[in-house]
Amino acid sequence: MKNVRYAKCVNCGRIYEAVPSLTTCGCGGILDIVYDYGYIRQKLTKEKLKTRPHTMWRYRELLPVEEDTPAPPLRVGGSPLYEAQRLGKMLGVRKLWIKDDGQNPTASLKDRASAMAVAKAREAGAQIIACSSTGNAASSLAGNAAAAGLKTFIFVPERAPKGKVAQLMTFGANVISVQGNYEETFELSKVAIERWGWYNRNAAINPYLSEGKKTVSLEIAEQLSWQMPDYLAISVGDGCTVAGVWKGLKDLYEIGFIDKLPRLISAQAEGCHPINRAIATGEAWYPMEENTLADSIAVGVPRNADKALRAIRESNGLVVNVTDEEIMAAQRLLGTTCGVFGEPAGVTGTAGLKKLCEQGVIGEEDTVVSVVTGNGLKDVANAIRFCGEPMRLPNDLDLLIDEFQKRGIQP
Amino acid sequence: MKNVRYAKCVNCGRIYEAVPSLTTCGCGGILDIVYDYGYIRQKLTKEKLKTRPHTMWRYRELLPVEEDTPAPPLRVGGSPLYEAQRLGKMLGVRKLWIKDDGQNPTASLKDRASAMAVAKAREAGAQIIACSSTGNAASSLAGNAAAAGLKTFIFVPERAPKGKVAQLMTFGANVISVQGNYEETFELSKVAIERWGWYNRNAAINPYLSEGKKTVSLEIAEQLSWQMPDYLAISVGDGCTVAGVWKGLKDLYEIGFIDKLPRLISAQAEGCHPINRAIATGEAWYPMEENTLADSIAVGVPRNADKALRAIRESNGLVVNVTDEEIMAAQRLLGTTCGVFGEPAGVTGTAGLKKLCEQGVIGEEDTVVSVVTGNGLKDVANAIRFCGEPMRLPNDLDLLIDEFQKRGIQP
Repeated sequence: MKNVRYAKCVNCGRIYEAVPSLTTCGCGGILDIVYDYGYIRQKLTKEKLKTRPHTMWRYRELLPVEEDTPAPPLRVGGSPLYEAQRLGKMLGVRKLWIKDDGQNPTASLKDRASAMAVAKAREAGAQIIACSSTGNAASSLAGNAAAAGLKTFIFVPERAPKGKVAQLMTFGANVISVQGNYEETFELSKVAIERWGWYNRNAAINPYLSEGKKTVSLEIAEQLSWQMPDYLAISVGDGCTVAGVWKGLKDLYEIGFIDKLPRLISAQAEGCHPINRAIATGEAWYPMEENTLADSIAVGVPRNADKALRAIRESNGLVVNVTDEEIMAAQRLLGTTCGVFGEPAGVTGTAGLKKLCEQGVIGEEDTVVSVVTGNGLKDVANAIRFCGEPMRLPNDLDLLIDEFQKRGIQP
Repeated sequence: MKNVRYAKCVNCGRIYEAVPSLTTCGCGGILDIVYDYGYIRQKLTKEKLKTRPHTMWRYRELLPVEEDTPAPPLRVGGSPLYEAQRLGKMLGVRKLWIKDDGQNPTASLKDRASAMAVAKAREAGAQIIACSSTGNAASSLAGNAAAAGLKTFIFVPERAPKGKVAQLMTFGANVISVQGNYEETFELSKVAIERWGWYNRNAAINPYLSEGKKTVSLEIAEQLSWQMPDYLAISVGDGCTVAGVWKGLKDLYEIGFIDKLPRLISAQAEGCHPINRAIATGEAWYPMEENTLADSIAVGVPRNADKALRAIRESNGLVVNVTDEEIMAAQRLLGTTCGVFGEPAGVTGTAGLKKLCEQGVIGEEDTVVSVVTGNGLKDVANAIRFCGEPMRLPNDLDLLIDEFQKRGIQP
């Protein structure tokens, strides 16, 4: 890869050649891909981008793949960025945009990482990819691998919502539902991957995955004509996504495409916020219980904490924790004002933004992008529980008129 | 509208001015929008399309809206067309493409019609839109209207899957769940719309909606560089989608963008196929029971039968009925070979294609596009029922090894 210099441990600084099957450092630290920005500046211009298809692979010069590695089949990326005028007004900010990344092939941002995993597995000559996941990484890997003709072994904790499991099974993955929490699921996947030598798509282990995820911020920047907002709000679980988002922003800054870096807003659940706790207290992170319905960010042992903490601190970021009720209120708010239906973990960034607006931390001078990371159809049970039931009646206009009067509805 | 001449009854031929709130003809027949193709030929070129955003509104010259009507907020259209090499080989056709229209804002093709409804409601100055639907038209209307700041009243039959209802409620629609079948649901919506004067988004009543739906075939044609396949397979319920698809193809033929019209493959469920029965017998259509799990096409009284029958006949089309088992097998086949997860009604076109291939009606000389009309996340219960359960075990490698051996899995 002419655009990549090497991989470097974020812990001890040791340097590794960027081979396709890279995992973690000997010291246990996670690796970061280091680019040759001088080379990339020569190769990539804003003008060149204009004629390329709207997928994550339009930013190929900024991605850690060989020049001739084929883009995997599914159309990943190119998700819409909506200017949310009514919601922005309600929250009291100057400008607000919603990036709906639930609009990806398997309906979450994780498709960006899984497409990268498929590309790198092909470079490595692997026929089987494996991962553990709370759900979205799993279904995205299963879908992207199926489209590319690769076999998958996927480990999910038993609490994974049915919608996500149905996706996995339909994509033909070998699915192992682990009777335990995410941590135990991760551990079993780790020993199994070592045992059979599968290509590893565990996000904190494989340093290429957050390079795929970073394409969400590359897109946001381009969709805003390279004029960056003051803040970028996103939900945080394992820490891999927020780290990727920050990496993408710094990449663009390094090659001169943007001249301002937004501050990150790291939103976690009240019931599980080990990363935000570490930022708030200034201490090291340590495990926390997983008490939230936002299953995709219920990660008590965040595997990518080091990169995530660094990203939030470097950006002079804000942290905010929200209750499950605040998360579900944000889901409905996005639905009613923007026509965007996000899963609980997917709307947690918006819930956090709302809270910071109510607290006066963010206000009418500020511009914000809020990323919705997954589609609400992935977890219908919770949506149903919080959004209420429809009116039920037989085919009878008089009964309908009564019902409207009872409920105070103006037809 | 300079590109539209008038609306014409498909039954009696009576002509109407194309005002925004058009419904049906006095004779009860449904209306068809008639274009001034000479005008459109002058205005639209293939070259002009190249620089436009990838939404359904890139074909504005072929759509029945005023030149200054704003495109509604959600990004509708621009869904991917995948060349399905492995699946094509398995089915034994020369070339096969899958159009994944589940990749739309509310996850179905119906977004194309609902976006059109929102545009026309705005032209009509309406603040409220209403419809009845088996589910997808409803959720797409709720989402597209919410994004545009319009209020909705939506009538669904009580059997509508929970995922679709959850979408409606989250989008803030006033939802009326009618204790009865689709026909009774439709009837109540009809009298309520008359009573309160809401803008009518019932697909067979409002002639603009299939004009929105036709953009799926405009896209397919452009994605294939205007080289049309021999066949286009699609599921058929109310008849509105297949009619729209055919209208789009004829539009392109009329303005000289394509020089060949594919034959339509109309796929319906064994348990509910009034349109295919009419084609097969050459008789008029009459109502049928609604016995299929493919809820979006379980339409015993197809409101758009006239246009649908005309479309299938004009194209020298084929009809094929598939069992629920064949539908669910097609869902898994699309998942495992293409990484596309479609809802049961969404994959019925592919199930029908598979059956015609097995019967030798379609073979190795043929090229086919199969449209997937909705996302499988909309109906997880059926997917779970047919795709099986995952392996379940605690965090223990030895138990995993045993399980693989028991199931004959090669890790």
